[in-house]
Amino acid sequence: MNTPIKRRKTNITLDSTFYNKNLKKSNLGMKLENLINNSNTYYLENDLAVIHKKPTPIQVVRVDYPARNKAVIREAYYKTPSTTDYNGIYRGKYIDFEAKETNSNTLLPLANIHPHQIKHLYNIVRHGGIGFFIVSFKVKKEIYLAPFADLYKNYYLIQKRKSVPYSYFKEKCFLIKEGYNPLLDYLDVLDKLYF
Amino acid sequence: MNTPIKRRKTNITLDSTFYNKNLKKSNLGMKLENLINNSNTYYLENDLAVIHKKPTPIQVVRVDYPARNKAVIREAYYKTPSTTDYNGIYRGKYIDFEAKETNSNTLLPLANIHPHQIKHLYNIVRHGGIGFFIVSFKVKKEIYLAPFADLYKNYYLIQKRKSVPYSYFKEKCFLIKEGYNPLLDYLDVLDKLYF
Repeated sequence: MNTPIKRRKTNITLDSTFYNKNLKKSNLGMKLENLINNSNTYYLENDLAVIHKKPTPIQVVRVDYPARNKAVIREAYYKTPSTTDYNGIYRGKYIDFEAKETNSNTLLPLANIHPHQIKHLYNIVRHGGIGFFIVSFKVKKEIYLAPFADLYKNYYLIQKRKSVPYSYFKEKCFLIKEGYNPLLDYLDVLDKLYF
Repeated sequence: MNTPIKRRKTNITLDSTFYNKNLKKSNLGMKLENLINNSNTYYLENDLAVIHKKPTPIQVVRVDYPARNKAVIREAYYKTPSTTDYNGIYRGKYIDFEAKETNSNTLLPLANIHPHQIKHLYNIVRHGGIGFFIVSFKVKKEIYLAPFADLYKNYYLIQKRKSVPYSYFKEKCFLIKEGYNPLLDYLDVLDKLYF
């Protein structure tokens, strides 16, 4: 239990900068979920944080057993998630967030965010956790970290507009830098904001 | 964001004691998972903690779309979970645990616990979270909270025996009291141990 937890290294070698440039190009088309999962694996393997994506909730209706110990699900349905996609622990703090992508250049539609996800993050932040959204403007190739507490202050306005304007992210949120290792270093933003 | 978080009430009225006794009998056959889910709902509704069961991980192979916006999963398989079943936040701390039931009166077979769940809880505790098992001895009708850190100290011995003896739970762990509201008050044990 006494193994020390490594702190993040900030020195970038010439080699990694080289890979950086090359990989950044190929990352451009990568789905936000894959960028985050890759980063979480990096954080876990380098003992920086333990953050996982929760499995997609599925309602299983019918299961066949073609052989002993082998179950095949034959009828099942996707359920609406009751919480966010990702949670875990970083530097002793509970971390909770949802990732959203949009093709729009001007806004994130509120339809992309479930009301129970808002309620869940509201609870998390009140109980002392760190809650946020990671929002990818795909066409602009910009990915922002949006702390929940500030977003919630503007929730009345957001509900009225049925969207969050791009300008909100540009002005009030934090651009996450894409790199080589990890592909999307969102903990770097948390370091600056909360630690 | 400034809504105060309620603290747990400890006063039990005569009424709830009455219900307590009656419900305890009917709870005896209830599955551990249901007891925990019921308690988590109680904790959430009373604003004491935000703890959820993660969905079961399922590998989806084939999906049909019999109608627009309607997806039916036609072939899928259960995957081995890479983490534990439950996590969340309580009094500002990250909480993570796995629930196990056994029909044995003398031991919990190690086969019930995946090695990656041990590794996951090991990481959680090192990163400052609270990790534990909730273990139900079904025939004895006793449910214990087993803090991970102490269990891990004995892990070499446990691996050799391929089980955790009942005496370990009886002597080193904490009996969780079953009641009315919530059905299984495991946060009460955490209060005494960690806060």
